[in-house]
Amino acid sequence: MATDTPVLYESKGSPNSRRVRFFIAEKGIDIPMKPVDLGAKEQFSDAYRAVNPRSQVPALALADGPVITEVLAIWRYLEEAYPQTPLLGTTATSKALVAMWERRAELDGFAPVMEGVRNAVPGLKGRALSGPHAYDQIVELVERSKQRVANFFADFNERLETVRYVAGDEFSAADITTLVTVDFAANALKMPIPAEHTAFQRWYDEVSVRPSAAA
Amino acid sequence: MATDTPVLYESKGSPNSRRVRFFIAEKGIDIPMKPVDLGAKEQFSDAYRAVNPRSQVPALALADGPVITEVLAIWRYLEEAYPQTPLLGTTATSKALVAMWERRAELDGFAPVMEGVRNAVPGLKGRALSGPHAYDQIVELVERSKQRVANFFADFNERLETVRYVAGDEFSAADITTLVTVDFAANALKMPIPAEHTAFQRWYDEVSVRPSAAA
Repeated sequence: MATDTPVLYESKGSPNSRRVRFFIAEKGIDIPMKPVDLGAKEQFSDAYRAVNPRSQVPALALADGPVITEVLAIWRYLEEAYPQTPLLGTTATSKALVAMWERRAELDGFAPVMEGVRNAVPGLKGRALSGPHAYDQIVELVERSKQRVANFFADFNERLETVRYVAGDEFSAADITTLVTVDFAANALKMPIPAEHTAFQRWYDEVSVRPSAAA
Repeated sequence: MATDTPVLYESKGSPNSRRVRFFIAEKGIDIPMKPVDLGAKEQFSDAYRAVNPRSQVPALALADGPVITEVLAIWRYLEEAYPQTPLLGTTATSKALVAMWERRAELDGFAPVMEGVRNAVPGLKGRALSGPHAYDQIVELVERSKQRVANFFADFNERLETVRYVAGDEFSAADITTLVTVDFAANALKMPIPAEHTAFQRWYDEVSVRPSAAA
């Protein structure tokens, strides 16, 4: 292992951590991982706050100092530092299309699933938003989030009727966010892909069997 | 003008359009712009839906076909196609830091301002989220959004006590999102930078006089 290898702090139960592990596995690179036990609230420990004062995972500690948080920022570092198997596009147009579709998966899919969970779970009372600040849950958000997830399924089904992968012909980070969102919705909101969305299901059957999806 | 020049659909009153105009002006590139009149609901016209079925601005229509929406995706295209005056970082580490701080400005600042506005304004009843779907306003979100904006001011003030620009030593897209957020909060929520946050104000005084801020 080169001495300039970064270290990823992550948690098995964190969907955002899964987005990064999936990305790393697709690239076939070897990044040491340090598990953070969210069940034991280790993210609020002094030791972890010294790594990431925002008490969030994932976080990528670079060998030369800075700690990178936010999935998009960690992906950007890894894509630039390890260019093999590009997952964020290869041309100006494909990079833009990956950014656009990845963001749509996140804003229309991942974010509402997270919002639906965090505003509902009793254990997250007063912690409706991740991060260092306390925010009350808002119960009306739970229903609105579920409407948004239903619309996400329909919109992405329409998209996947015309393309093999979310951003087009090539597997990309947009597929990673979409797959993690589907599994997160099924597990946490009990909202699997609706049976009528056969194009979405075709895509899911193809992408979910990639070995990297189990990372 | 080269025949492969894209066209930007945008609106003067749209803070997301301003993020793109600001970026273009910083790069000093010449991108033709087509105004979309949001006051007249032109974004819902058949003509504009043919450009962007999601009825949102900004949108960048590329000469070779695809229409790119989402600010981050438009920025990515412009950064790759017009590499002069990089605004998304230059090394793996600085690219990651720009992505991280830009996202923090957006998630902790820009998004709550938008949420506070869209869930409050009578004219946006049933349109609490931008895009093709109808969502009811949730009045409790207005207060929670304002709390988030207050925390954003405090957190970014702390950051700007130790760095010249949001992402570090260099002006970047993170400064663009932060400046647009500050003006949006002041105008739409009547929340200017609190007087005690002198580091944030020092940064604002420096960045807001760049000619590109008026684009």
